[in-house]
Amino acid sequence: MEGSFLKVKIFDTTLRDGEQTPGVSLTPDQKLRTAVKLDELGVDVIEAGSAITSEGERQGIKNIVSEGLNAEICSFARAVKVDIDAAIECGVDSVHLVVPTSDLHIKHKLRKTREDVQEFAVESTEYAVDHGLTVELSAEDSTRTDFDFLKEIFSEGIDAGAHRICACDTVGMLTPERAYEFYGGLTDLGVPVSVHCHNDFGLAVANTLSALRAGATQAHVTINGIGERAGNASLEELVVALHSLYKVETGVNVGMLYDMSRTVARMTGIYLQPNKAIVGENAFAHESGIHADGVMKKAETYEPITPELVGHKRRFVMGKHVGSHIIRQKINEMGLRVDEERFQQIFSRIKALGDMGKCVTDVDLQAIAEDVLGVLPEKPVELEELTIVSGNKVTPTASVKLKVEDIEKLEAGVGVGPVDAAIVAIRKSMAGVADITLEEYHVDAITGGTDALIDVVVKLRNGENIVSARSTQPDIIMASVEAVLGGINKILSDKKIRESKETSS
Amino acid sequence: MEGSFLKVKIFDTTLRDGEQTPGVSLTPDQKLRTAVKLDELGVDVIEAGSAITSEGERQGIKNIVSEGLNAEICSFARAVKVDIDAAIECGVDSVHLVVPTSDLHIKHKLRKTREDVQEFAVESTEYAVDHGLTVELSAEDSTRTDFDFLKEIFSEGIDAGAHRICACDTVGMLTPERAYEFYGGLTDLGVPVSVHCHNDFGLAVANTLSALRAGATQAHVTINGIGERAGNASLEELVVALHSLYKVETGVNVGMLYDMSRTVARMTGIYLQPNKAIVGENAFAHESGIHADGVMKKAETYEPITPELVGHKRRFVMGKHVGSHIIRQKINEMGLRVDEERFQQIFSRIKALGDMGKCVTDVDLQAIAEDVLGVLPEKPVELEELTIVSGNKVTPTASVKLKVEDIEKLEAGVGVGPVDAAIVAIRKSMAGVADITLEEYHVDAITGGTDALIDVVVKLRNGENIVSARSTQPDIIMASVEAVLGGINKILSDKKIRESKETSS
Repeated sequence: MEGSFLKVKIFDTTLRDGEQTPGVSLTPDQKLRTAVKLDELGVDVIEAGSAITSEGERQGIKNIVSEGLNAEICSFARAVKVDIDAAIECGVDSVHLVVPTSDLHIKHKLRKTREDVQEFAVESTEYAVDHGLTVELSAEDSTRTDFDFLKEIFSEGIDAGAHRICACDTVGMLTPERAYEFYGGLTDLGVPVSVHCHNDFGLAVANTLSALRAGATQAHVTINGIGERAGNASLEELVVALHSLYKVETGVNVGMLYDMSRTVARMTGIYLQPNKAIVGENAFAHESGIHADGVMKKAETYEPITPELVGHKRRFVMGKHVGSHIIRQKINEMGLRVDEERFQQIFSRIKALGDMGKCVTDVDLQAIAEDVLGVLPEKPVELEELTIVSGNKVTPTASVKLKVEDIEKLEAGVGVGPVDAAIVAIRKSMAGVADITLEEYHVDAITGGTDALIDVVVKLRNGENIVSARSTQPDIIMASVEAVLGGINKILSDKKIRESKETSS
Repeated sequence: MEGSFLKVKIFDTTLRDGEQTPGVSLTPDQKLRTAVKLDELGVDVIEAGSAITSEGERQGIKNIVSEGLNAEICSFARAVKVDIDAAIECGVDSVHLVVPTSDLHIKHKLRKTREDVQEFAVESTEYAVDHGLTVELSAEDSTRTDFDFLKEIFSEGIDAGAHRICACDTVGMLTPERAYEFYGGLTDLGVPVSVHCHNDFGLAVANTLSALRAGATQAHVTINGIGERAGNASLEELVVALHSLYKVETGVNVGMLYDMSRTVARMTGIYLQPNKAIVGENAFAHESGIHADGVMKKAETYEPITPELVGHKRRFVMGKHVGSHIIRQKINEMGLRVDEERFQQIFSRIKALGDMGKCVTDVDLQAIAEDVLGVLPEKPVELEELTIVSGNKVTPTASVKLKVEDIEKLEAGVGVGPVDAAIVAIRKSMAGVADITLEEYHVDAITGGTDALIDVVVKLRNGENIVSARSTQPDIIMASVEAVLGGINKILSDKKIRESKETSS
C-alpha cells in the first residue's frame, strides 16, 4: 500500500449529508450563514442541499447561489428528471447525481434491474449536462457493488458527459486497505474520482485518506463528521491529518476549524463529545500529573499540534490525577506564596477531593490555599452579599452588597435573566470607581447534568484596558458573578500598579 | 500492506487512561462496578488504575483485586520503585510499566539521558518480576522514538524478564500504513506486542487494526474512546470492526456493548455525540426519506450491522427529509385513520415545520394529525409558577407549581445552583407520574453579553424511553425549565400513545 497524494479538493456536504443527521433541520437563513462561513473556510465545493426536498430547501439553495461565493455550489439529485429540474431551478453549478449500484439497493430499495439503473444514470447525466450543469455521477452503496458493473456504469456515465465520478461507501464497510484497492481501481476512467465515506465502524477518515493516497482527488466530508447514523468523514480530522501527518495542503484555513465546528454544533444542536479529535473541548485539555507537567515544560510532549493551529485553546484541569506542578503554578498565578509543608497540605486536600469523585475548581483551590495559609489575599472588591429572585412571573432581580476598598456599596438591578440582573447591580455599585463594560460572555457546561460544572469566561473593558477572567462552578450565577468580580479586581489592581509606577517615576 | 490477524486480546484501560479524561474522577465504588461489568463483557486485561495516584485509587484497585474476576488485573506504574511498591500493595496480577523513550520526553520531561532511562527500565522490570508480577514493559511516545533505541530498550527489558511489550502512540501521530510498518518491526522480539493508540487525528482505531494485522496481539482500548485529550482507541469500534469487517473474534460479548457504553458515559459524565459509531444515539437512527424507506424495506440497505448485534435499537426520526412512508407508518401506529387528502395536508405541514428548522417529534406529528382531523391535543404538564431564590449566602432554592393532567402539584427543591434546584423541584412534582432522569444538559450562549440568548438542550430518560428537547431564551433558568418540561411532555404523550395501543390491541 504505497501511493501518493495528488491535489486534494474538499467537497463539503455538511448542508446535505450533515443536515440528514436525524433530528437536524436548518432554516434557509441558517443554511446561508453556514455556507458563507464554509466558503470563508476555503472548501472547494458546497453541497447546499437536495433541491427536491421541499420549498424551503430550494429557497435555502437559491439564497446560497445568489451570494456569489467562491466555492462550486452543488445540489444532490437522484437520477430522475424531477430532481434535476429542481436543481436547475435553484441555479446551482453542479449536481451530485446519485444512482444505487449494489444489487441489494437495486432489488430491494428500487425494485428495479441493473439495466434500469444503467438507463437512469445515462439519461439523467445527459439531461443534466444538456442543461449546463457540472455532473458528479455518484454510485450509492458502491462498495457492495459488483466491481465490473460499477466500472461499466461509470464508463457509460462518463461517455454521457459526467465530469467526475464518486463512489460512496454508504454503510461504512471499507477498511483502509480495501479503500486503497477499491478507489485505486477507479482512477483509470479518465475523470477525477471522489471518495465518500461513512463512519459506522469509526474508519471514515482513515478510509478517505487511503482513497486519496490511491489517487482519488476529492473528499466528501462534513464539519464535526455529522450525517446519517454515525455520520460521514469529518472535515477537520481529514484536513488536519493531511496537513500534519502527510504534509498535504488543501484550500482550507485550518485556523478557522474550531470556530467552524462550534458554529455547526450550535446551529444543528449536535454537540460533540469532549474527546472528539481536533475540535472537542478536551482535545487540548490536560489533567494527569505526568501529562500536565510535560506540557508545561514543553507542549509537544503531549500535544501533536498546537491548539492555536486550529483556533482552539489549551486547558489545565485539576482532579485526582493532578500533579504538583500545576497546583504550584496555579497558586503562583493567584499571587500566593506557600512553603513546602503548606504546599503538601494543600496538595493532599486537592487529591482527597478527587478521590471523592469531585473535580476541583480554581475557586476550590483558592479557598483551600487561603484556608491553609490562614490569610485573606487583598482584593479591592469583595462580594459581601448576593441575592437573586427569579421565576416565570417575576422580573429577574438581584441585589449585591460589595465592599469596594472598605466602603460598602449596596445596589439592586433587574435584567432579562438572573445573571444579567446580577451584572447590572454590580456595574451600578462600581460606578464612580471603575466604569466597566462587559465585552464578551461565554458559558459552557463542562460535563453532563444540571449539577455539572459551568465554565464562565468574561472579557471586561475599562477605558482602553481589557481583561478576561474565568470561574468554574456548579452554580451559573455564582460562576458569572465571580468571573466578573475577578475581572474587576484585575482591572483595579492593574490600575493601582500603573498609578504607583507613574507616581514613583 | 498484507498481514493477517493472530489471536487478539483486549486490554481495557477505561479505568486508567479513560479515567485520566480531564474532569473525570471515579470513586472506588464506581471503579469496582465498572470493573465487574468489564469482566462480564469479556475483556482479557483490566488496567484498574495507577496505584501511586492516591489512597482512594489504591482502595479502588484493592477492591477490584479482591473480587476475583476472570480478567488479569493490572496497575499502571512508572519505572520507579515507589510506583511498583504501590502496585504490589494492591495485589494486582500485572503492571503496565511505562518508560518514556523519545528524546523529546527524555530530555524535556524527565531531564535525563537515554542511558538513565535504560537503567530505570531494566531495574524496575527486574524488581517487578522478582515480586511475582507479570510485566508489560511499555514505551511512551514510542512512535517519535529512534527505532533502534526503542528495540534496544525493549530487548534489555525482555532480558530482564518482561513478559510483554507495548508501544504507545502517545500523541496519536501514526497513520494506518506507518502503524503497520512500525508494529510489524517489533514482532521479532519473542514476546507478545501490545498496541496503544491515541485519537488526536481520529485514526486510533484504524491504526490499532493495522498494528494487529502486522502481528501485534493485544490492543489497549477504552469504552467510548475516552482518555486524555481526544482519547484512546475505542473498544466498541475496534471489536465490532474486527468482528464484522475482518471476521476476527475477541472474547468480548458484542451484545453488551451498548449497555457498557451507557454505563461508562453515565459514570464519567462524558456523554457521546449522537453520531458516535456503534454506540451513539443516532448509530441506528434514520431520517431521510430514501434511507428510512430503504431500511423499512430491507434493513441491510442502510445498516452495516443490525442494532441488536451490539444491544442497540433502531429509531426513525421525522424532519424535513422525511418520506411519506414513515409518516404513514407512524400515523397508523398512533391508531389514527386518515384519507389521502388529509394525509397530504399532514405531510406538507411536517415538511413546512422542517423548513422552519424544527425537528418534528412524534408529539408534533400527533398534534398536527389531530388538528387536521379536528381532534384536540393536550399538554400533560404545564408550568403555573416558578420562583427561584439564590445568592452567595443562600442555598439555591426553587418552588414550582405544575398542572399535571389538571392536578396542581406544588413542590420545592434545593440544588447546587438555581437551575439544579428548579429541576429537583420539577422531578419531585413528577414522582409517581413519570420518573425522569436527566441524561444530558448542554448550555451555550449564542451571542455576546449576559443578555445573550442561552440555548439549552436536555436529554431525558424515562425507563427505556429517551427524548431530547431544547429551549432558547435570554434567561438560563427559564430556558432550562422549559426544555425539561418540553421533554417531560414528549415522554408523557409517547406513553399515552403506547398505552392506548396496548388497550386497543
